[in-house]
Amino acid sequence: MPSALPTLAFGGDYNPEQWPRHVWEDDVRLMSEAGVNLVTVGVFSWALLEPRPGQFSFGWLDDVIDLIHAAGIKVDLATATASPPPWLTRLHPEMLPVRMDGTTLWPGGRQGFCPSSPVYREHALRLCRAMAERYGGHDALALWHVSNELGCHNALCYCDVSAQAFRDWLVARYGDVDGLNDAWGTAFWSQHYGSFDEVLPPRAATAFPNPTQQLDFRRFSSDQLLANFVAERDVLHELSPGVPVTTNFMIMANTREMDYFAWAPEVDLVSNDHYVTAADPEGHRELAFSADLVRGVAGGRPWLLMEQSTSAVNWQPRNVAKRPGELLRNCVQHLAHGADGLLFFQWRASRAGAEKFHAGLVPHAGTESRLWREVVELGATLGRIQEIAGSRADNDVAILFDWQAWWGCELDSHPSEDVRYLDLAHALHRAVLDQGVGVDVVHPDSDLTGYRLILVPTLYSVTDAAAARLEAAVARGATALVTYFSGIVDEHDHIRLGGYPGAYRDLLGIRVEEFTPLREGERVHLDDGSVGAVWSEDLQLAGAEAVATYVDGPVPGVPALTRNTYGDGSAWYLATRLEQTAIDALAERLLAEANVTPVVPPAADLEAARRRAPDGRSWVFLVNHGDEPLDVPVAGLDLVSARRTDGLLRLAAGSVAVVEEDGP
Amino acid sequence: MPSALPTLAFGGDYNPEQWPRHVWEDDVRLMSEAGVNLVTVGVFSWALLEPRPGQFSFGWLDDVIDLIHAAGIKVDLATATASPPPWLTRLHPEMLPVRMDGTTLWPGGRQGFCPSSPVYREHALRLCRAMAERYGGHDALALWHVSNELGCHNALCYCDVSAQAFRDWLVARYGDVDGLNDAWGTAFWSQHYGSFDEVLPPRAATAFPNPTQQLDFRRFSSDQLLANFVAERDVLHELSPGVPVTTNFMIMANTREMDYFAWAPEVDLVSNDHYVTAADPEGHRELAFSADLVRGVAGGRPWLLMEQSTSAVNWQPRNVAKRPGELLRNCVQHLAHGADGLLFFQWRASRAGAEKFHAGLVPHAGTESRLWREVVELGATLGRIQEIAGSRADNDVAILFDWQAWWGCELDSHPSEDVRYLDLAHALHRAVLDQGVGVDVVHPDSDLTGYRLILVPTLYSVTDAAAARLEAAVARGATALVTYFSGIVDEHDHIRLGGYPGAYRDLLGIRVEEFTPLREGERVHLDDGSVGAVWSEDLQLAGAEAVATYVDGPVPGVPALTRNTYGDGSAWYLATRLEQTAIDALAERLLAEANVTPVVPPAADLEAARRRAPDGRSWVFLVNHGDEPLDVPVAGLDLVSARRTDGLLRLAAGSVAVVEEDGP
Amino acid sequence: MPSALPTLAFGGDYNPEQWPRHVWEDDVRLMSEAGVNLVTVGVFSWALLEPRPGQFSFGWLDDVIDLIHAAGIKVDLATATASPPPWLTRLHPEMLPVRMDGTTLWPGGRQGFCPSSPVYREHALRLCRAMAERYGGHDALALWHVSNELGCHNALCYCDVSAQAFRDWLVARYGDVDGLNDAWGTAFWSQHYGSFDEVLPPRAATAFPNPTQQLDFRRFSSDQLLANFVAERDVLHELSPGVPVTTNFMIMANTREMDYFAWAPEVDLVSNDHYVTAADPEGHRELAFSADLVRGVAGGRPWLLMEQSTSAVNWQPRNVAKRPGELLRNCVQHLAHGADGLLFFQWRASRAGAEKFHAGLVPHAGTESRLWREVVELGATLGRIQEIAGSRADNDVAILFDWQAWWGCELDSHPSEDVRYLDLAHALHRAVLDQGVGVDVVHPDSDLTGYRLILVPTLYSVTDAAAARLEAAVARGATALVTYFSGIVDEHDHIRLGGYPGAYRDLLGIRVEEFTPLREGERVHLDDGSVGAVWSEDLQLAGAEAVATYVDGPVPGVPALTRNTYGDGSAWYLATRLEQTAIDALAERLLAEANVTPVVPPAADLEAARRRAPDGRSWVFLVNHGDEPLDVPVAGLDLVSARRTDGLLRLAAGSVAVVEEDGP
Repeated sequence: MPSALPTLAFGGDYNPEQWPRHVWEDDVRLMSEAGVNLVTVGVFSWALLEPRPGQFSFGWLDDVIDLIHAAGIKVDLATATASPPPWLTRLHPEMLPVRMDGTTLWPGGRQGFCPSSPVYREHALRLCRAMAERYGGHDALALWHVSNELGCHNALCYCDVSAQAFRDWLVARYGDVDGLNDAWGTAFWSQHYGSFDEVLPPRAATAFPNPTQQLDFRRFSSDQLLANFVAERDVLHELSPGVPVTTNFMIMANTREMDYFAWAPEVDLVSNDHYVTAADPEGHRELAFSADLVRGVAGGRPWLLMEQSTSAVNWQPRNVAKRPGELLRNCVQHLAHGADGLLFFQWRASRAGAEKFHAGLVPHAGTESRLWREVVELGATLGRIQEIAGSRADNDVAILFDWQAWWGCELDSHPSEDVRYLDLAHALHRAVLDQGVGVDVVHPDSDLTGYRLILVPTLYSVTDAAAARLEAAVARGATALVTYFSGIVDEHDHIRLGGYPGAYRDLLGIRVEEFTPLREGERVHLDDGSVGAVWSEDLQLAGAEAVATYVDGPVPGVPALTRNTYGDGSAWYLATRLEQTAIDALAERLLAEANVTPVVPPAADLEAARRRAPDGRSWVFLVNHGDEPLDVPVAGLDLVSARRTDGLLRLAAGSVAVVEEDGP
Repeated sequence: MPSALPTLAFGGDYNPEQWPRHVWEDDVRLMSEAGVNLVTVGVFSWALLEPRPGQFSFGWLDDVIDLIHAAGIKVDLATATASPPPWLTRLHPEMLPVRMDGTTLWPGGRQGFCPSSPVYREHALRLCRAMAERYGGHDALALWHVSNELGCHNALCYCDVSAQAFRDWLVARYGDVDGLNDAWGTAFWSQHYGSFDEVLPPRAATAFPNPTQQLDFRRFSSDQLLANFVAERDVLHELSPGVPVTTNFMIMANTREMDYFAWAPEVDLVSNDHYVTAADPEGHRELAFSADLVRGVAGGRPWLLMEQSTSAVNWQPRNVAKRPGELLRNCVQHLAHGADGLLFFQWRASRAGAEKFHAGLVPHAGTESRLWREVVELGATLGRIQEIAGSRADNDVAILFDWQAWWGCELDSHPSEDVRYLDLAHALHRAVLDQGVGVDVVHPDSDLTGYRLILVPTLYSVTDAAAARLEAAVARGATALVTYFSGIVDEHDHIRLGGYPGAYRDLLGIRVEEFTPLREGERVHLDDGSVGAVWSEDLQLAGAEAVATYVDGPVPGVPALTRNTYGDGSAWYLATRLEQTAIDALAERLLAEANVTPVVPPAADLEAARRRAPDGRSWVFLVNHGDEPLDVPVAGLDLVSARRTDGLLRLAAGSVAVVEEDGP
Repeated sequence: MPSALPTLAFGGDYNPEQWPRHVWEDDVRLMSEAGVNLVTVGVFSWALLEPRPGQFSFGWLDDVIDLIHAAGIKVDLATATASPPPWLTRLHPEMLPVRMDGTTLWPGGRQGFCPSSPVYREHALRLCRAMAERYGGHDALALWHVSNELGCHNALCYCDVSAQAFRDWLVARYGDVDGLNDAWGTAFWSQHYGSFDEVLPPRAATAFPNPTQQLDFRRFSSDQLLANFVAERDVLHELSPGVPVTTNFMIMANTREMDYFAWAPEVDLVSNDHYVTAADPEGHRELAFSADLVRGVAGGRPWLLMEQSTSAVNWQPRNVAKRPGELLRNCVQHLAHGADGLLFFQWRASRAGAEKFHAGLVPHAGTESRLWREVVELGATLGRIQEIAGSRADNDVAILFDWQAWWGCELDSHPSEDVRYLDLAHALHRAVLDQGVGVDVVHPDSDLTGYRLILVPTLYSVTDAAAARLEAAVARGATALVTYFSGIVDEHDHIRLGGYPGAYRDLLGIRVEEFTPLREGERVHLDDGSVGAVWSEDLQLAGAEAVATYVDGPVPGVPALTRNTYGDGSAWYLATRLEQTAIDALAERLLAEANVTPVVPPAADLEAARRRAPDGRSWVFLVNHGDEPLDVPVAGLDLVSARRTDGLLRLAAGSVAVVEEDGP
């Protein structure tokens, strides 16, 4: 009978097929030393598990799982369908992915298949079924891991197989071709379709392909990947009942191909991979945003960090290593933002292949290393904070986020290519966190009840229903901030006419006649001393008051920041890309107006978050990202150091704390 | 019976098929309000006019044209062949264009056809014939508009169909393959062809493709596009006699694929599309150059501005909006440089599709907008200046310009990739304009009689005949300035041996032994204090005198600027890329030597031009591009403000005037 | 009976087929005037020699060779197989090269064939045989020139023909597919191959292709090119016995596709093409490095400079011309570093085609030119220094260099893309040369006996045997310097485990736990005041002493430069990319420790080298690259000026000397 997941999972991808058997026993011994309780096996094993079509070779995997099980470690078992074996693509080259420009992507790397390929699906499900039949009841099994990072390299495929699947998807969406013609606006540029048979993916074209075609192709592509997950999940649910099924999302940095809000309802447990952006000296800020977004995708429930790296990775241009203490800080950040477990890629750093310079829990240098000592220490720390498992965030501030709005926002033929979807989302998230306040990152269709402050950065497309939800929340007393290039189009990418931003004009009490984007590097000055970039607008007040006004640039004298009283709340509008310090000041002002109180008083380099259990217990997570110690006013028991604090907790430079708060 | 063109045309592209019918009536009412007198319809309507092969659906277009006609507005009717419908490329994928690297360009955008495709031609002519038969005698019809921006996205196609057409073109050009071998210099690199069947377009190759092959392919490509125009024009002339036929050129910024000097004789009326380069804060300078070039292409005759934008476009990286007054200034510039009408793309800003963020005469915000008010004001202004129609420029200065020299100048495997054809053409044009002097931009084969100053920027290739024309003009008393990298090769791209610049060595009284291009960012100093970049040469005097000499760089002590007396005139040579201030000073010096007098005395930010009617009346066009008022000495009636001036005209910041000058 | 090669060859590529016959006689007269004694003919003549399949047309070439012969000039006869004629690729398009992304490379340029094509091979050998039969015994013949710059444009071909050849090559390398699976590490990412039939070139893929696959594909590609040479050479040896056979290598700047150390044993004489990098104001430093590398490839024997340019070339972005004296300096540099002859591309600058802006010995301007006068002067100078022929270098310092390590070092998915293989090799070479000391650039497998100082820059991959050779040399008393990212992997690109740098850990007395690469532009400071970039490491001493230590950056307090006593020698390790001045200081320190004495005392801008004859005579080559005269302490007869010097030789700015040293 399969096992329950460990309370706080700790472990990582384990790929023993890369090593001789004598290493395996060493591995299991070291796992126990580090406190590992869950390992993922089989992720890239298809070619070894099915070395010839239909002939399976499970013996080595039996041994691996038994060995792990004997040590009391649970297994997150991959269905091994992430990368098809060479024999399959040789037999079926029509399943290779094809780029927008017609370039076929050949085997040699990984995940080299067209997501719409029925051949792939058939073979993947045959393997999935065989895996489920063999291991579905294994005592070590705690979790099924379908495929791996679905869409990581092959999200968008433009081949003929994809083209037919896209047509089928469009038929399902629009019913008849007139619906498609209306939605895509084909009356222009002689694009009117007489039948679905004429429709193609947005392949390389002479000019900008139709934007709604592009948007629908992204929706289709995300759906096709999800359908592959669902097909495997259904097999697993049938053959291995009671064992949760997940697939590892990739919510991090610029990953934008998958609409994870649409995916999350299909998984039994949300799990995520996250790697810090090495080029960013403050990469921990992106980590915090992404972790909050994972929690939003998971509907506020705890989630599992399926992959991170103990130190450097191999696939960025310059793969910076984590400095002493950084690994622990990153881990506590993930926990603070809602993770109930920490897994890594991968257990032992490879000796060969494309990922050999990716750090592991066991580095090339072996266990005589600082890195290994930090891993062991991390395992011990996790053991001391088990009680946080299952607790949740409880925040007053929300940021609205939508992958479909992202896709729309960054389509071509737009007013300015400098409007990037993540830009203001990150800037606003950071500004609120720096005030010591936690943030939920949620879908615009979410129930917004209970939020005191709602931030809406560059939400280019929005449905009528979502716009109404925001209006209602403000009317009930919330404060909202909408930024430029929000509410411009509906879900078909049709302009909401009559003055921008069509969806929010009434709420905001403004009317924008024209966008006046700035030139590259151009700056505008506001009468409150702040400085804007990227964007400005020819805006008129229609009920709102001007809070700040341009003194130069394309529209001097025009309001750049406005505030409108709406029902019991207020709705602010920001029409330019303020620099971070001004955004920080704005966030402080908005939080004050909305009466939001911080977890702990803000301090430079301090990250703080609270998780709360249903029984009322709460924990404050503290991370000192700086080089100086901080004194944090908090009372309770720090589970990391096992020390109580009654007034001020001294948080050493670079250190962390998880304080079980004293009751009220 | 079709109508005459309006005196000064005003209007734009009208694409009502994007909107429900109730909007159409609103459109016509607003057109009348704005004074619109000509609209272009049908440009991208093929898929709606011929929804299935050979089945036409003209009803909606009948209604549109009748509605417009009822309001007294004339029609510029497109043949609708610009973009083939999806069914056609589905039936005939062999008509899709193919890039140099073999990438097929698929439907999804616009203008997706191979210019050499007989299938395209056959279907386009069938539609063209049907259009001509149905509308060729309509009372509203004032102009035929063949295709649209021919070559905008598909000028260069490398497919197999194009390859065969290229071979046919080469047979016609060279007669036998030995002629081609000689012209292309195939004796080197083992490129000798045994027959035309072996010849290919200059597709992606291991090394630089043969330069004359590249050049001939550009000639061929321009000719193929033109042939499509001519084929449609002949149908229209046959079936709709008396109605002028045009196609909208794209003389602006970097458009270089079409040799419009070769095209102009084939159109009944030269029309042009022009969009300001948003990234350039002084984009109005490029506008002035392009408009002068359009006039040169039109042989000095008035031309029609077929498209411009009321404000921002959608296809540049950052689409800057026009500020108040800028639209009127741009319009008056076009008129000043020879336009007899101003049309726009498009009447009503789209709600969907790739061009929805392109400004229209009716913006998304509707008529309650500054933009609409400026449009109405523009229409009124045009009404007040009707009398300028038919008048022409009368300039003393010419710049020689040749698309074929441009193609040659920017071929690969050249001394320096920093030599860009437009660079000095723009710099010299601007310098002369800033002296208050008008410039004609003409082909090197033009009759140069009457010009006092002739500027020859980087005219890399030149025929013997054209070189002789310049010599003759100077011998008769003109002043000429030739710059580096002019006269280097003949029309086959063969070096003129014996010392550069072979074609102009005698005229200039110099002999260049070797080019000594500068490194990236390198500067050289001259003994007159000026600074050069990009280029220098090891030049020897052979009759000329040194005017300025390098003091450093690769050739210190060598002349950089020379002057040669030749017959009754003088010929200057500039061997480096002087900075703009030095070019301005040089222009002033040359104008003085050539005894050229300005339209009005030069002033910063002032653009001035004169047009003259056959009856002797003349108009001075004035545009103040600056932020300060200017006092301009001119006497006459300003048609824009309807005020007379006897001495000084006060031209407010950002304003314009069109002054009918008092007789002599 | 064929002739011997001239003592010091002087001449160049002669392509008279580009010119009418009357020019040929002029050419031969001018060759005699300049002292030319060897010309290369036929390089790109295939299409003219075999205008139709199997039909040869040798008449014109007979005439050319006879004309040259009559003037007493020798012939380096190309087999003319470098560029197939258009008819061949038309008949066999399957021999066209294909890029990684599937793009076919079409005719139009040169060298457009797949190196693995049996069709190409068959036709090339037929031509080669015909050439050998006709000219193999010609009295003018002194050298055979197989193909031209093999691999210049077509080194890596990914077509199906190449794929099959790659599989054949892999079978030969690995025997069975398990060997390949082990070497490539296919157990990961589901890459396990069931048979060689499944293997492909590393074509465009979804993710990083397997690194060992990439490495083997580079080895294969180099071998395929070499096999084409060997096939032709064998024909020539058979049919033209006694005549040496060469092919011109391209050891210069970034040429990295060919493993010339593997090629050199197959040629009878090493010849090389070298062109200065125009963008580099100190391009002469790269020339010196490359020339030393050519000598290393040639095993220390004299070599022939087959191509250089008298001045500018045509294929760089900005083709800077050589200034007066620069040609002679470059030439003396090549001689100083081991050349026994100087040839040029090409005799007469072309009038047409892609290389027409490439300088020749006879420029476009003709013989009334500075360039021609320098050519004549160069010929005379070579006549005065004939006695140096056959002499060799005799250096105490070696740099280890390996194309295979280069390929490995710059694979993707590495710690930092800023680690470029040539970077430190060039920096160290320059530093030693600036100390007046000569350097051999040799393969890691070379016999290192006799070297006092051995430099090992970023030698990423190394065999056990080569690592042992370095250990042995140090143990015997040599000083070594190893830099970061050396000795990391074995020949299969498998990590040497247990701490970096695995291959050199014992020798260096250090152990690196983790790489800590720097961010873009990041700098670290050392406690000796020097500054590092690109790289740092978490290094521990294991016997070595710290010479300099980081004071900041990722690993403050960790040694950055170490020294270990090993046997009778010492082994230094450098763990960061020091700026050039610090590398210069380090080189000075190492040379002192190793007791290496300079050729002449170092001076700014002075380049010096010594060649020594077997009979004990020696020559010091001096080049003053600066703008000031230098006084160089050397005693003997300067063959260039024909003046003796007893104490100080005054070397004028920009001038050269070749001093036959007085005996000891």
